Amino acid sequence: MKVIVSAVLAAAMAGGVQAAPFEPSELETARELRALALESNLGYEITADLTTRIGNRLAGTENDARAVEWAVAKLESLGFDRVWTEPATFPTWTREHERVAITSPVEQELVALAIGFSPGTPEGGVDGEIVMLDDLAALKAAPAEDIKGRIVFIRERMERARDGSGYGPTRAARSQGSMVAAEKDALALIIRSVGTSTNRFAHTGAMRFDAGSRRIPTAAVSNPDADQLERLIELGDPVRVNVDIGAQVSEPYTSQNVIAEITGGERPEQIVALGAHLDSWDVGTGAIDDGAGVGIVTAAAKLIMENAERPERSIRVILFAAEELGLWGGRAWAEAHKDNIENYQLAAESDFGAGPVYEISARVSDEAWPIIEAIHAELEMLGIAMGGRTQARGGPDFMPMSIHGLAAADLSQDGTNYFDYHHTENDTLDKIDPAEMAQNVAAYAVLAWLAAQSPVDFGSGPELIEDD
Amino acid sequence: MKVIVSAVLAAAMAGGVQAAPFEPSELETARELRALALESNLGYEITADLTTRIGNRLAGTENDARAVEWAVAKLESLGFDRVWTEPATFPTWTREHERVAITSPVEQELVALAIGFSPGTPEGGVDGEIVMLDDLAALKAAPAEDIKGRIVFIRERMERARDGSGYGPTRAARSQGSMVAAEKDALALIIRSVGTSTNRFAHTGAMRFDAGSRRIPTAAVSNPDADQLERLIELGDPVRVNVDIGAQVSEPYTSQNVIAEITGGERPEQIVALGAHLDSWDVGTGAIDDGAGVGIVTAAAKLIMENAERPERSIRVILFAAEELGLWGGRAWAEAHKDNIENYQLAAESDFGAGPVYEISARVSDEAWPIIEAIHAELEMLGIAMGGRTQARGGPDFMPMSIHGLAAADLSQDGTNYFDYHHTENDTLDKIDPAEMAQNVAAYAVLAWLAAQSPVDFGSGPELIEDD
Repeated sequence: MKVIVSAVLAAAMAGGVQAAPFEPSELETARELRALALESNLGYEITADLTTRIGNRLAGTENDARAVEWAVAKLESLGFDRVWTEPATFPTWTREHERVAITSPVEQELVALAIGFSPGTPEGGVDGEIVMLDDLAALKAAPAEDIKGRIVFIRERMERARDGSGYGPTRAARSQGSMVAAEKDALALIIRSVGTSTNRFAHTGAMRFDAGSRRIPTAAVSNPDADQLERLIELGDPVRVNVDIGAQVSEPYTSQNVIAEITGGERPEQIVALGAHLDSWDVGTGAIDDGAGVGIVTAAAKLIMENAERPERSIRVILFAAEELGLWGGRAWAEAHKDNIENYQLAAESDFGAGPVYEISARVSDEAWPIIEAIHAELEMLGIAMGGRTQARGGPDFMPMSIHGLAAADLSQDGTNYFDYHHTENDTLDKIDPAEMAQNVAAYAVLAWLAAQSPVDFGSGPELIEDD
Repeated sequence: MKVIVSAVLAAAMAGGVQAAPFEPSELETARELRALALESNLGYEITADLTTRIGNRLAGTENDARAVEWAVAKLESLGFDRVWTEPATFPTWTREHERVAITSPVEQELVALAIGFSPGTPEGGVDGEIVMLDDLAALKAAPAEDIKGRIVFIRERMERARDGSGYGPTRAARSQGSMVAAEKDALALIIRSVGTSTNRFAHTGAMRFDAGSRRIPTAAVSNPDADQLERLIELGDPVRVNVDIGAQVSEPYTSQNVIAEITGGERPEQIVALGAHLDSWDVGTGAIDDGAGVGIVTAAAKLIMENAERPERSIRVILFAAEELGLWGGRAWAEAHKDNIENYQLAAESDFGAGPVYEISARVSDEAWPIIEAIHAELEMLGIAMGGRTQARGGPDFMPMSIHGLAAADLSQDGTNYFDYHHTENDTLDKIDPAEMAQNVAAYAVLAWLAAQSPVDFGSGPELIEDD
């Protein structure tokens, strides 16, 4: 993460600590919320309820609609002042089947998942010789005659890191590889899963989907299967595989962002927004991605509702639709509210599992920075360090609005193990540690409460610089 | 494990240490073998070659035949004095498909594997309400009217333990549950996997298969899926599932035990037998079960062949057929050689993964016990403790011959994590630590070499008391 330091900022930082922006009673409440959250199991229970009753909930499916119903009912039952939905429309994709098998020198079935928006193959699949490449750059550089009529295998490995920084570089092959390989007339693309586990799970995820672009059938194989392919190829005989994918891109579907509000007592039009996404991939039960976030932000708001005075600003919980298929809920929300952006004070989304928060960073105005510092002082005993002023996006679903200048805070979670489970069949409730989840709830409750009481407007933050 | 102590034994044990049964040069060789094994990667390379070139090798399949060919060629290339095969005939079972899904209150697909020798269901599966029971005893005790027309779910959890002692009790439901549930007219049986992993893998394995017995379709679900079923059932609404299994029990097939010998220089008719099994389940690549054993015992013999004088007794490596389907290779071998049992001196099989050996125990005659103690003295620096005189079987494939009195040693491996992978798709090469595997090779090399040089005949051990 980049830290931007300027003279103005340094002055603001030095001044912030002395400003004592919050009333003693407000700080007292923040500390109570923090303590209560650490003792509460509510976040975990909400996640357990969602993932047990609904299971996975790919955007555009029946389970997506069930999840929306579940969310409205759950938020209403928790006693929010208002609960409503706002539409988001998006193309959908259906996985029918996938099978990736080595056919020569010996038949071996591989554990694989088609990548979202992959086209299907002809019935029976496509069969071809493997050409193994190091990464997307190698595919871009490869002469078309080496690729044509073959099945490309990109063997790039994702690196494990606390901040998940290994994801971006390896995700490139997943999101762009299909189009690049199509230009060179490959038959199909197989990638090593974008994930860190050595267990035999393939990691799905979406590919970039430009209207009219040519794509080829694309699947990810598990890390052990990628190892096996590499070993077989290194034995020297030509390796042939069959890639058989059944999949459909369907008509646009309209799902809903589900929104619940604690209406502010003094500045109700000003909104502190906590986010998570309600949809998941169609494998696993979407527990860490993003059932955990749903539990965390909902429980944080509920704790405030039950244990604090009515906040000055409104606090909204936004459970976004169709994040996995391309941030469609976040985009619809930005489109609907961007003209009113001055009312959106500060945003933070939980969408990185249930590992403990280790750092807060933010992208806010100079005037509001001391508030973030004062909030950090109340988070420090949770083991949360100050990450400074960064290009904080507030999470993926707030990115479309952050581009318009929405101020945002990132509560960065320890993601060391997140990509062991991310987008796999193995993303299930047991992967969540309730105590770690409670620490997250505590952090979001403190952040939301104090942001709602801030004497300084967050207004708009510096505009987010897109790097994607 | 039971330790039998008697006055005779105590005297023998006390006397053993002073007897100095081995020549200094023999001990020197044992120590060289130990050191060379720890520096060698041969065992791992053999396992990698088998699991990469062949993949899984369910007994009776084409890959089983390929594995037999591979083993003969590999053992011949390693320079054994003799390599041959001996037939083993057994019923085979083919997995065509399985699908276990919750159908009510909400559709959720579970990760499941049919149990070996499960019959198939009618097309489309059987659909019924779940009745959840604690264990096999609860199924036996349940009134038939509570079971009839329902789908039984046994939720018993396997306990993790270094010695794998959690396996036996929970395996009972897998091996006998189908017959018991059939007697009470259940539609199907689902068991919580007999395994310790919280990753979403189902563990297959064989059920007991008595000719003429009625069985019902049976599948194991992964531990996270069993948790999900329990939670859903505890929510109170009736839970219905569909169990759809395609499977065939086929005509008897004849595979081969593959045997390689280092012919003894002085007493060639006397045999020290090292075993492993060549077959595997049809999921994963059979790396820890039992590709590891194949690598360990083959490498141990090869090290002796290359680095020791010709041993006095013959050393045989026996790669058994069809262990997973019911010890068919071991039974055929016992049947073929039991009349000649006095020539079979000592047996030890490696079939518990590649975790380090932590203990040696044995079932040998009183006269031979000091030899085991002297061998243990050379194993101690490998971290191997003395487990004493036990009902050692030498491993599953030697059990049929142990019942006739074959003397046996057990080199017990640390199995703490073995049942995370056992009989799953996730039993792949990356689960093996080459350094731990080398420690196993060292232990088998020392054991086989010194047993072959023993001045005392092992003759027959005390008869194995069957407890199964």
